[in-house]
Amino acid sequence: MLGVILPARPPHASVRRIMIDCSTIEAAAARIASHVRHTPVIEIDGGSLSLNYPVKLKLELLQHTGSFKPRGAFNRLLSAAIPDAGVITASGGNHGAAVAYAARSLGIKAEIFVPASTPATKVNRIALYGARVIQGGDAYADALAASRLRQAETGALEVHAYDHEDVIAGQGTVGREFQQDAPELTHILVATGGGGLIGGIAAWYAGSAEIINVEPEGCPTLTTAMLVGRPIECPVSGLAADALGARQVGALMFPIAQAFVTAAILVTDEQIAATQRLLWEQMRLIAEPGGATALAAAISGRFVPPPGARVGVVVCGGNTDPGKIAAP
Amino acid sequence: MLGVILPARPPHASVRRIMIDCSTIEAAAARIASHVRHTPVIEIDGGSLSLNYPVKLKLELLQHTGSFKPRGAFNRLLSAAIPDAGVITASGGNHGAAVAYAARSLGIKAEIFVPASTPATKVNRIALYGARVIQGGDAYADALAASRLRQAETGALEVHAYDHEDVIAGQGTVGREFQQDAPELTHILVATGGGGLIGGIAAWYAGSAEIINVEPEGCPTLTTAMLVGRPIECPVSGLAADALGARQVGALMFPIAQAFVTAAILVTDEQIAATQRLLWEQMRLIAEPGGATALAAAISGRFVPPPGARVGVVVCGGNTDPGKIAAP
Repeated sequence: MLGVILPARPPHASVRRIMIDCSTIEAAAARIASHVRHTPVIEIDGGSLSLNYPVKLKLELLQHTGSFKPRGAFNRLLSAAIPDAGVITASGGNHGAAVAYAARSLGIKAEIFVPASTPATKVNRIALYGARVIQGGDAYADALAASRLRQAETGALEVHAYDHEDVIAGQGTVGREFQQDAPELTHILVATGGGGLIGGIAAWYAGSAEIINVEPEGCPTLTTAMLVGRPIECPVSGLAADALGARQVGALMFPIAQAFVTAAILVTDEQIAATQRLLWEQMRLIAEPGGATALAAAISGRFVPPPGARVGVVVCGGNTDPGKIAAP
Repeated sequence: MLGVILPARPPHASVRRIMIDCSTIEAAAARIASHVRHTPVIEIDGGSLSLNYPVKLKLELLQHTGSFKPRGAFNRLLSAAIPDAGVITASGGNHGAAVAYAARSLGIKAEIFVPASTPATKVNRIALYGARVIQGGDAYADALAASRLRQAETGALEVHAYDHEDVIAGQGTVGREFQQDAPELTHILVATGGGGLIGGIAAWYAGSAEIINVEPEGCPTLTTAMLVGRPIECPVSGLAADALGARQVGALMFPIAQAFVTAAILVTDEQIAATQRLLWEQMRLIAEPGGATALAAAISGRFVPPPGARVGVVVCGGNTDPGKIAAP
């Protein structure tokens, strides 16, 4: 598939009720404040990145567990009544680690289903946090199906990786912090898997900045959904599939995207890998493929900011083997 | 050598003229502002680090070239008349990379002398910036001697790695930013090699926070100097010697240390390596040994903050092979 840049508004946008707004996200921020890190923002001159404009990076890869996911996980666990059987979830890896971490912090049992493609870095981390890990199936959707069979047996609370209001509101706190620390931004690049992160961020900004969806060419789920006017299954593959490989975006985030996500950019695996190398060489940051995807839109030149734009990028995960990225 | 914790005041402190103060550092900050990154500060809960207090980390490893050194290098180069022969320096590696980077940015020729112990990561980086690299000699002091012979031939401007007012003032901008972003801090842990960084930071705070010197047991140059009342040569060895292995602290920084450095802590190589692993596992940060040394004082328990203290730590470099640190 070619790396197309989509027009600003999808052809089939419809008005639906949006469940998450600034007040929901403010409440989430207050709820999770003592459990998550307020991650820093750094301004990078364009020259370091071979760009002719500076960017501000939200370093969410420095979050607990190495990705933004604990925000949603804590907000969900702190908002629900937890049954004796604890919590259960399916995950490409990062959400599973976050649920395991949050569950341990709160003294809750956790079972995490991950597909065979989840890298050892992430499986080990989930186990390290004391959760039971069950690995199997080709993709996230398979792990999700397996987790639901098990949930029907145990009665554990399902903590969906993205399609739940509390999860989206938790991820939206990334947007809240980003705006707080860099209020001048006009364009925010965010990578999309199931859409919890971009849904939350778009709900926070609610049109006050352009929210740009970036996806690997192998995982174009939100791009496709916006073209056809509804969440739809896509085949998923490629370097970032362990993080961005949900086959279909969430139903709850979709109306938010229709209202507030203004463009979509697809990037290649080579562009993602090149961005990972650049982040190491120029900034000494280790980002996983999914974590480098949003910035790859800028580095590749597929995103071109309009004159006067102030560009922000969420670097959302760092759970990878650094030996695969870093040349001395 | 045992990991001793020294008393607050050295026995032989004397009053000498201190050349660097807030106004010198403010001027340096203005001079270098367009060339260096304002690096972020992140607050880490104690639990992540197995501490019973939170710490704020100044992420100076995200600076251009992977260490704080460009601050001093730019301030020196922008303050001097540059001869046709360009600039020359000796370095364990990080200063050399910074001088090479600054020289390239400003269109100046550079020759960099590094000892045999300088790791490939750093040698390659210097060469990448277009400088001529000459590697030889056992330690930094040998490279310095070689660079001075060469300087006498060429007439290039010597950019000393630490013992120059403009270099110390440049490094002092780390303190200025840290105080700006975390004004509540009462104790700042800083690793010492030749003393440019701690000298600059101590000159900035000038007694308004406790500045704690942290050195590897194998490189106790400032600790020893403060005990004997003058800079004195020490043998240097160990994991962090490529960054902290100056055999003697600078003459210019020493009166600043006598006035404003209030304690010294020595840490073992094992404690430094454990801190590197912890920074990766808990924060997805790759710090080099010298970059992890200051935090190792806290992690090891050798630094114990008094009640009510608010602790800051400078994580000052990330130029290492991440494959050596990171377990998945």
